[in-house]
Amino acid sequence: MSQKLKFAVIGGGSWATAIAKMLCVNCDEIAWYMRNQDAIDHLKTHHHNPNYLSSVEFNPNKLRLTTDINEAVAFADYIIFAIPSAFLNDEMSKLTASLEGKVIFSAIKGIVPETSLIVGEHFNDTYDIPFENIGVITGPCHAEEVALERLSYLTIACGDSQKAKIMAAALSSDYIKTKISDDIIGSEYAAMLKNIYAIAAGIAHGLGYGDNFQSVLMSNSIREMKKFIRKVHKMKRNINNSAYLGDLLVTGYSVFSRNRMFGNMIGKGYTVKSAQMEMNMVAEGYYAAKSAHRLNEKLEAKTPIINAVYDVLYEGKEAKKVFRKLTEKLD
Amino acid sequence: MSQKLKFAVIGGGSWATAIAKMLCVNCDEIAWYMRNQDAIDHLKTHHHNPNYLSSVEFNPNKLRLTTDINEAVAFADYIIFAIPSAFLNDEMSKLTASLEGKVIFSAIKGIVPETSLIVGEHFNDTYDIPFENIGVITGPCHAEEVALERLSYLTIACGDSQKAKIMAAALSSDYIKTKISDDIIGSEYAAMLKNIYAIAAGIAHGLGYGDNFQSVLMSNSIREMKKFIRKVHKMKRNINNSAYLGDLLVTGYSVFSRNRMFGNMIGKGYTVKSAQMEMNMVAEGYYAAKSAHRLNEKLEAKTPIINAVYDVLYEGKEAKKVFRKLTEKLD
Repeated sequence: MSQKLKFAVIGGGSWATAIAKMLCVNCDEIAWYMRNQDAIDHLKTHHHNPNYLSSVEFNPNKLRLTTDINEAVAFADYIIFAIPSAFLNDEMSKLTASLEGKVIFSAIKGIVPETSLIVGEHFNDTYDIPFENIGVITGPCHAEEVALERLSYLTIACGDSQKAKIMAAALSSDYIKTKISDDIIGSEYAAMLKNIYAIAAGIAHGLGYGDNFQSVLMSNSIREMKKFIRKVHKMKRNINNSAYLGDLLVTGYSVFSRNRMFGNMIGKGYTVKSAQMEMNMVAEGYYAAKSAHRLNEKLEAKTPIINAVYDVLYEGKEAKKVFRKLTEKLD
Repeated sequence: MSQKLKFAVIGGGSWATAIAKMLCVNCDEIAWYMRNQDAIDHLKTHHHNPNYLSSVEFNPNKLRLTTDINEAVAFADYIIFAIPSAFLNDEMSKLTASLEGKVIFSAIKGIVPETSLIVGEHFNDTYDIPFENIGVITGPCHAEEVALERLSYLTIACGDSQKAKIMAAALSSDYIKTKISDDIIGSEYAAMLKNIYAIAAGIAHGLGYGDNFQSVLMSNSIREMKKFIRKVHKMKRNINNSAYLGDLLVTGYSVFSRNRMFGNMIGKGYTVKSAQMEMNMVAEGYYAAKSAHRLNEKLEAKTPIINAVYDVLYEGKEAKKVFRKLTEKLD
């Protein structure tokens, strides 16, 4: 990074930890905000995050760890948010440092519940950040595989391609390949919607549907996603690019996916509440299903799969019956 | 089947057995040709195919089993070929019964080595069967899941939509949903090409690439497939339909896939010969890679994945090196 631009990571979870790892390849120092003081102490002493991706070893000299979000924001030119969308508002309420001139990248795959906006729109709308200072980091990329340094591809979307290139360079390494895009809105919606489809895949699996059906479900999902995103923001995009289809597949098919796991438990008969308690994690798709469903009341895209997930998660309908009906609508 | 049309299955393997099972739901009697007299005897006595999908129970009164292909062909109006493409010419050389007026459906996923044609083209070219009497049955559908009666979707393509409907009705049941299409050529090429991509997925897995990479590989594969098929036969088709993308995914991601398994062994360091001996089965993608590569000398579609598989299987190049280069070409 010749420009000596500074980067901050907001979040202490697995994706934040993976991003911190990627940045440390290219940066002398990064700011890393997390709420948990114990985790910070552990990182300082034992050089790894005790709670997530604990196999990843950090050089503590490269980390400016802090429980004060303002310190991290003030330090950096580029700020990457990697916390569950449900906590974003809480964290932002602590912010007193100015965001002016800062470039905000979202690595959050979800919708902000309070505003029903994707994160980019939320920053633009609520904090007056211009779109040329807003970007998105999308997969297909499970944090767990970044920890293992398995080759992964990221798409970095930003209205200002120069800023996308800077972020791409900061994240690239032997095992991280990056590609830039100008489709912030589409990338974020894809990242959010794919979690709903992963829940659908999990429910189907839990109900006993096999691989043949899963492939039909994924093939229908990508077509549904295309229709939905086109209604939100029409532009020329190839929905089969890695940022859309690839991201859907890695989430829909991978054992690492929380959303798929959550769906699987629902399919096996857990209630929403018990599945959430059992997992002790937030499945982003749970919130996304509600937001997408609400949004679609206006958009009116044909989304039988989102509707099915919504009906199971929010309307208390029986998964088995809902999915039997869904099978009639797929092809 | 009110029309009292008669159906025959040619082949004794797992896909042929699955198709025979599907037909038996709707037909009073079907002809079923296989080379193996022992298997026929076993089917007559024990009511299941001893070699493939042996859990599937048949009603022997519904089966007109024969080792004489001519008897099966003479019996039927609709003849479904479900043998490896490499054996098609051999079997057809035994044929003396007339094919005139017969409707030929291919459930073969490959290319006829002797003519380098997909099966539909081969029947048209070699036996003068008009295209309106030629059809294709494609997945996404693993025979093993048909045996388990897990919900599966088939696409039935035929130039004559009436004949596609007849075949669709003959195969449909509680657990088989069917869709008709007029894209014989595209469906067959997709069914053939996906086996090459499944070998690529297997090789990548064998080499230690993870889920993140697999999703990028599949996302690139469907884009490559689209380009290839468009060069062969340009028409309006949604490559994300189940017959194309779904079929790719079920093969690329499923543990049931022979082609993926074959690729996996290659990735792990087996030679082509030893992998083939170990598997004791023909991986259609092995032949498909050669045919597609040869065909593409004329088509000149950009096919880095097919090229990589070809280089490993036929040029003796090291999988590890070839795939490292391939990763630079994907995005």
